[in-house]
Amino acid sequence: MKAVIFDEILKLDNNYPIPVPKTGEALIKVNTIGICNTDYEITKGYMGYKGILGHEFTGIVEKAQNKSLIGKRVVGEINCGCGNCEWCAQGLERHCPNRSTLGIWQREGCFAEYVCLPEKNLLEIPENVSNEEAVFVEPLAAALEILEQIHIPPYKKVIVLGDGKLGLIIALALNAAGLNLTLVGKHEEKLTLAKAQGVKTKLLNELKIEKTYDYVVEATGSITGFETSLALTKPRGTLILKSTIAASKEFNLAPIVIDEITVVGSRCGQFAPALRLLESKRIDVKPLISDIYPIEKSIEAFERNKEKSSVKVLVKID
Amino acid sequence: MKAVIFDEILKLDNNYPIPVPKTGEALIKVNTIGICNTDYEITKGYMGYKGILGHEFTGIVEKAQNKSLIGKRVVGEINCGCGNCEWCAQGLERHCPNRSTLGIWQREGCFAEYVCLPEKNLLEIPENVSNEEAVFVEPLAAALEILEQIHIPPYKKVIVLGDGKLGLIIALALNAAGLNLTLVGKHEEKLTLAKAQGVKTKLLNELKIEKTYDYVVEATGSITGFETSLALTKPRGTLILKSTIAASKEFNLAPIVIDEITVVGSRCGQFAPALRLLESKRIDVKPLISDIYPIEKSIEAFERNKEKSSVKVLVKID
Repeated sequence: MKAVIFDEILKLDNNYPIPVPKTGEALIKVNTIGICNTDYEITKGYMGYKGILGHEFTGIVEKAQNKSLIGKRVVGEINCGCGNCEWCAQGLERHCPNRSTLGIWQREGCFAEYVCLPEKNLLEIPENVSNEEAVFVEPLAAALEILEQIHIPPYKKVIVLGDGKLGLIIALALNAAGLNLTLVGKHEEKLTLAKAQGVKTKLLNELKIEKTYDYVVEATGSITGFETSLALTKPRGTLILKSTIAASKEFNLAPIVIDEITVVGSRCGQFAPALRLLESKRIDVKPLISDIYPIEKSIEAFERNKEKSSVKVLVKID
Repeated sequence: MKAVIFDEILKLDNNYPIPVPKTGEALIKVNTIGICNTDYEITKGYMGYKGILGHEFTGIVEKAQNKSLIGKRVVGEINCGCGNCEWCAQGLERHCPNRSTLGIWQREGCFAEYVCLPEKNLLEIPENVSNEEAVFVEPLAAALEILEQIHIPPYKKVIVLGDGKLGLIIALALNAAGLNLTLVGKHEEKLTLAKAQGVKTKLLNELKIEKTYDYVVEATGSITGFETSLALTKPRGTLILKSTIAASKEFNLAPIVIDEITVVGSRCGQFAPALRLLESKRIDVKPLISDIYPIEKSIEAFERNKEKSSVKVLVKID
C-alpha cells in the first residue's frame, strides 16, 4: 500500500505492507487524512518516532471481529491504553503509562491506505458530517478537552492566543460553548475565518497587553507566546497551555508565583463531544481547509503545511 | 533609630529617622524580626527594592487612631491594598495592582526599631504564642495559602520538595491539616526537624523519581527542583509552585501539556489561619530557629542566613 513514512527523512513508500489487525483491532481503509503540526514536529525529531505518520483520519472499516462495524464510516481515538490500569478504568487511556498513540508513539499512523486500531477506539461518523469535516474530530476533541478539564463561567473574559489551525479550532469550539471570547493572532486573513463564524478577533499588535483576562489559552507554540499569555492573565487567573514548548532562552517563572496564576496543561480530548459538535453544525470547519492533495502528492502537502499562509492541509485517497 | 537598609549594599544605619504613620496607620515598636530568603534575594536585586528590609515581625503598637490597639502585641499583614479595587473588595489586597508590600515594594520594611502599617493590617498575637513563634506567621500564612487556593483530598499523595525554611514550614502546616504527605530534601538534619513532629521524610537521593504524586509542592527555589517536581507529578496532577524561579537554561514545558499537569503559583496567605494554627500548638515552629541575633549584629545574621546549615535566623531588639 501507499504510506507516508518518517525515518530520518520523510518519504512516500508505494509498497508498504498492509497492516494485520491484532486481536480486538479493526482494519480500516483510510480515505481522508489531516496534517497536524505534531506530524511536522515529528519530522524534526519530536518523540523520536519512526514509521507511518498521521493520527487524523476518516475511513471505512474493512475487517473487524464485531461484524456490525464492517462497512461503517469511522474516525478513531488515537490513544490505545492497556485496559487494565487506573487511567483506562477512568476512560483516560490518553494517560495510560503503557499506551501507544497513533503515528506518534509505538503505533503506526494513518498516513496510508490502511490503518489498524482497536475496535473500541472507533466512532461512527454521523450521516450529515462529511469526511472533510470529520477529519477535524481529533483537533476539535483537543480543543474541547479544555472544557473537560476546567469550568469556565460564561461571564469571564477568555482570550485565545494564536491563529494557527489549533488556535482557530479552539476559538470556534469555545465560542460555540457560549464563552466570552476573543481570538488574537498575527494574520488578518486567518482571523477572518473565525470572525465569519461570530468570533471576536483582534490583531496582536492592536491588543493592549494587560493582566485583564481570567482565562488565557496559549496556542502559539512559542515561548514568546507563552510569555505574552502570562502578561495577559489576571492575578489568580488560568493559563491553558495547549502547545508543547521548549523554552530556548532564559525564562522567568516568577510571574506565575507572584500573580498566583494556574497553568493547566491540556492535550488530547474525547472524540464523542467533538463529533456531536460537528453533527450540530454549530461550527463549520470547512473554511479552515487550505488545500486537499492526493496521497501521491503527500510530500507536497507537507511542504504546503509548513507555509504560514496555510491552515489545514488534507490528503485524500481514492 | 537602628534600621537595616539595602541600597546597593546591605548596611545597619544607627540614625535612621523614625517613620511617621499616615492616616489609618499605626506606629509599631518592633521586637522580633525574621529573615526570609526574599530579603536575601532583594540584596541580589530582586524587585529593585531599596530601603529598610524586612517583612516578618512582631511588635507593640505605640501610636494608633484606634486607641484599643495601643499597647497590643501584634503581627501585620504585609500587603497594603488601595481599598477600592475588585481585589481589595475580595480581601485579596495581596493582588491589588496598586499595593505596597512591606520591605519588598514601595513600603519601608520592619527591619528597624519602628515600623508603620495600616491599622487594619494588624492582628493581635494570642497570649500563648511567644514573639519567637509569632514571627513565623508570615511564612506560615504563605504555606497555608496552598489550602486557600486548592482542595487537597486527604487520601491523595502529597510530596513537598525542599527542606529549606519554606519547605519545612509547608510540610508542618500541611501535615497538621491531615494530608498524606512526604517531605523530601537533601539535608538529614533539616528533615529531622519535621520528622520529630510526625512528618514522613525522605532524602532526595533515596527517592524513586516516578510520576506517582497527585500533589507536588515545589519549595526548592531552583529550576532543577522544578524539573524534578514535574517528574514526580502524576498525569493530571497538580504542581504547586511556591518559589520564584528564573530558568537559566533551556527548559521544556512539554511535560506540562503531555501529562496535563496543573501548575498553581502560590504566594502570600492570610494571617488569621496561621495565627490560629500557632495558637492551637498543633505545630511547633521553635525548633526551626537556628540563631537569634541582636539588631546590632544584623549583618552577621544575614551572613548566617546564607549558610546551608541554618534554617530560620531571627533578630531581636531590646
